[in-house]
Amino acid sequence: MPSAIRNILFIMFDQLRWDYLGCAGHPYLKTPNLDKLASKGLRFTNAYVQSPICGSSRMSFYTGRYVHSHGAQRNNFPLKVGELTLGDHLRDAGMDAFLIGKTHMEADAQGLARLGIAPDSVIGARVAECGFDVVVRDDGLWTEGPDGAYDTRTSPYNEYLAAKGYGGANGWSDHANAVELEDGEVTSGWFMKYIDRPANVAEEDSETPWLTSRAIDFLSEAGREDRPWLCHLSYIKPHWPYVVPAPYNSMFGPEHVVPAVRAEAEKQDPHPVYQAYMQTLVARSFSRQEVREKAIPSYMALIKQADDQMGRLFEYLEQAGRMDDTMIVVTSDHGDYLGDHWLGEKNFFHDCSVKVPLIIYDPRPEADATRGQTCDKLVEAIDLTATFIEAAGRKVPDHIVEGRSLCDLLHGQQPEAWREAVISEMDYSTTPMAESLGMAHRDARLFMVFDGRWKLVHAEGGLPPLLFDLQSDPQELDDLGRDTAFAVERERMYGHLHAWTRRLSQRIAISDDELDAMKGKYARRGILLGLYDGSEVPPENLSAVPLRPKEELGVS
Amino acid sequence: MPSAIRNILFIMFDQLRWDYLGCAGHPYLKTPNLDKLASKGLRFTNAYVQSPICGSSRMSFYTGRYVHSHGAQRNNFPLKVGELTLGDHLRDAGMDAFLIGKTHMEADAQGLARLGIAPDSVIGARVAECGFDVVVRDDGLWTEGPDGAYDTRTSPYNEYLAAKGYGGANGWSDHANAVELEDGEVTSGWFMKYIDRPANVAEEDSETPWLTSRAIDFLSEAGREDRPWLCHLSYIKPHWPYVVPAPYNSMFGPEHVVPAVRAEAEKQDPHPVYQAYMQTLVARSFSRQEVREKAIPSYMALIKQADDQMGRLFEYLEQAGRMDDTMIVVTSDHGDYLGDHWLGEKNFFHDCSVKVPLIIYDPRPEADATRGQTCDKLVEAIDLTATFIEAAGRKVPDHIVEGRSLCDLLHGQQPEAWREAVISEMDYSTTPMAESLGMAHRDARLFMVFDGRWKLVHAEGGLPPLLFDLQSDPQELDDLGRDTAFAVERERMYGHLHAWTRRLSQRIAISDDELDAMKGKYARRGILLGLYDGSEVPPENLSAVPLRPKEELGVS
Repeated sequence: MPSAIRNILFIMFDQLRWDYLGCAGHPYLKTPNLDKLASKGLRFTNAYVQSPICGSSRMSFYTGRYVHSHGAQRNNFPLKVGELTLGDHLRDAGMDAFLIGKTHMEADAQGLARLGIAPDSVIGARVAECGFDVVVRDDGLWTEGPDGAYDTRTSPYNEYLAAKGYGGANGWSDHANAVELEDGEVTSGWFMKYIDRPANVAEEDSETPWLTSRAIDFLSEAGREDRPWLCHLSYIKPHWPYVVPAPYNSMFGPEHVVPAVRAEAEKQDPHPVYQAYMQTLVARSFSRQEVREKAIPSYMALIKQADDQMGRLFEYLEQAGRMDDTMIVVTSDHGDYLGDHWLGEKNFFHDCSVKVPLIIYDPRPEADATRGQTCDKLVEAIDLTATFIEAAGRKVPDHIVEGRSLCDLLHGQQPEAWREAVISEMDYSTTPMAESLGMAHRDARLFMVFDGRWKLVHAEGGLPPLLFDLQSDPQELDDLGRDTAFAVERERMYGHLHAWTRRLSQRIAISDDELDAMKGKYARRGILLGLYDGSEVPPENLSAVPLRPKEELGVS
Repeated sequence: MPSAIRNILFIMFDQLRWDYLGCAGHPYLKTPNLDKLASKGLRFTNAYVQSPICGSSRMSFYTGRYVHSHGAQRNNFPLKVGELTLGDHLRDAGMDAFLIGKTHMEADAQGLARLGIAPDSVIGARVAECGFDVVVRDDGLWTEGPDGAYDTRTSPYNEYLAAKGYGGANGWSDHANAVELEDGEVTSGWFMKYIDRPANVAEEDSETPWLTSRAIDFLSEAGREDRPWLCHLSYIKPHWPYVVPAPYNSMFGPEHVVPAVRAEAEKQDPHPVYQAYMQTLVARSFSRQEVREKAIPSYMALIKQADDQMGRLFEYLEQAGRMDDTMIVVTSDHGDYLGDHWLGEKNFFHDCSVKVPLIIYDPRPEADATRGQTCDKLVEAIDLTATFIEAAGRKVPDHIVEGRSLCDLLHGQQPEAWREAVISEMDYSTTPMAESLGMAHRDARLFMVFDGRWKLVHAEGGLPPLLFDLQSDPQELDDLGRDTAFAVERERMYGHLHAWTRRLSQRIAISDDELDAMKGKYARRGILLGLYDGSEVPPENLSAVPLRPKEELGVS
């Protein structure tokens, strides 16, 4: 049994594609700092998120449970009170859980009120913040429109910019996510036409360095070594708006934009939900080469900046001695289509959207067996919660946490009976796509199941499925979902899906061990069901019942 | 829109078979008082419980949610904190919810502690008591064995017996559930050999009259008319021990025992789980005619006594004017095999176990359309929570409550798109049957789906299904689950099952109406995704972003 990990640094980027890293083979984007971490850790090449949208994906990362289990189906759907988080589990193991950055958590205000839990109590704040103790909560979208702000909290980033002397009420909008034009005027970073221009902010004050500094400050605090911690350092970028400060804005150009993975055939008789997504504004924008040539260099530059900040952070950890006792995880909540498959954003199930980078550095000697290697096992985002619990020295409560610990894989062990398929889900109920398809809320749902070769997407609401064969069609250009030649494969994949939908996911209030302790108990607590004359059970089981006439009953 | 109901009297018996009522056609058992209620109300002839075991069935009755949703899979598995109950919903509608009798609720002590909810606070007590305000909580099994009591609470029934002068520490065991022998000595009511003898208690002090009196006392209290109430009057009988006081013990004899519904063929190559249940002590006991001839007359007498108490209760309600403003519901948590199919108890899915009596008297004039009628629609226990919420004047929160209101049916309306199948579940993980079959906890689960003709039982753990055709085989004697001639029917029933397992059951923290309000909101709160130059959206959507140079952007 390996010793427990002392600390965990759980780094998440937002909307970082699995293949936009040097170590993942990107031809133009070099990420030496992340690559170095990968060389010291294990890189998972088949890591899938439980939903290709921020909020739902994160709720699965933070609970270790599928979306179908925790119910936070989409961004800004509250995580219901009663769901346990990695913070709950780790505190049971004596480890604190801190947040620096984004969670996309929406508190279940009705549930808190119903149960009389004050949101400003310690427990209430943790429930409201998805189990974390908040150092900085910043979801990174301090945007506003005619109906007000998207995020109505106080923005710590805007407070930081104001303290640094940036003018205006909303520095995020006016500086960090605005771009300087040639004449010194600025315009919004939402306009992709201009995002090859530098952000209207000093590089050190842009969001990624700002959060890195917050993390270093926090980890440097006096007394931080007294208790084990998990720190969830959760970056906002390279999520849109794709705005990056100088000098990064000029590092990449159209010549570094890899061709879009797409085919005209995808537009011929597409699946109705896929078709509806192809008609969104962001999809139409990213289908234009001029947009890709502006956005993708910026996206790459945001990743380059992130990698540089990783170098800064890892150097701090090295100097502080934390590389010896701290597990470091780097991943993302989902990818970004960037025009592949005629789509922008995420929200669908091609690998560029639903597969994520995952690097785990485990300082323990047992992990020496896998340093610098890759692992192609089918891994899910929910596995991290299980990994952290086991790394913290506790048995994974598998009546609650649906993921599986990766510790065995990190230590070069082959776990028994690994999963045969991964699951991801999408709820598009609040989108215009649901309206255009005439879908009721509960019908506007998709389930993906992928077994390493075949990827089936089931659509509720009476729609057909999609099916891709990633062996013969690794780019996922040929939807076989309605091809009669593939009925057997579809049926097999539906078998995986339905074994999963039947799973036991809500018996979270009692563990298997507690059930074992319950077995056979009742007969010795007076439940004497089925007796005719008492001779059927040991006499001591009858010790508390009226027994006369003893001779007739034949018991003592 | 019908007016709201003022009060609801929700009467549940425990283990009362659907066919052991006069109005359901029993040849020997007459139940004139329940029949009279049926003549004034609507009797449902296809009402199914969500689990054929007390605790899980009741958690579904009280939450309006399937077992697969609430997770209290079996007796004494806690209902997890966060599940909403009919008490929660009704209090939102201005109606109190009181308990007199049994719930089989196990509080989620770990969940309460984790959320800092004091079990003795008003909220904590309601969470711990499945949403009810407790007048009397009595689960009716005050039995003891060498390892102590099955139920470690204080017994209000034992307190009552002691106050009435019955001696001994456990009146339930020594009096109410003991039987007098001929010589004046007593023995335990667990021994079915003697249960044709009278209980060692005065009839008026036996459990059914005692609870009826508690209900009348409660309903008579001063001020009770000030606020609408639901009163859950939840009887313990005719559940085992099958002990009944004089004069009821002598009302029925072996000549009134209907033949067991069973066939030798059922023992030939039975389904493994069915076979394991046939080997239990209670099944072997009830397979013996001498046991049936003792137990069934007692069971019938307990029902007869219950019917007499219904007469007393309904007379009180009549005199108190409550028949004009009170909905009255009579049902049971499951049935009793009584030797049918070579089984005792419940725990499996033949109709005698999983189908229950359900009579609803609705005092509103709209229900005049159906008085005295029967309804053969497929109804589920979870429909009652929905019915009560609608009867109390609130819209059913169908993101939480999975049942459907029966009010339309009560009022002679045909609801649109009624369910095509009912679902019931069984978890046998803590039983010796799971051990004998070598089943892990999560594999020791069964799902029943019944469409009015075909009944499929899916077994987890790699076991085959069972299938019955109730049209050609209404007694359910011929398991077609492995018959190759019925593959199409099985596939169709699996289709129903899997549509159900994929259902949206955990998005309980936000309603469909709230989602509707969310639609399209973000574009006007500054989420300007996919813009190239700003011309793609109405100018007002850009009101909060830096816009210079305006002429270049072409927006105002």
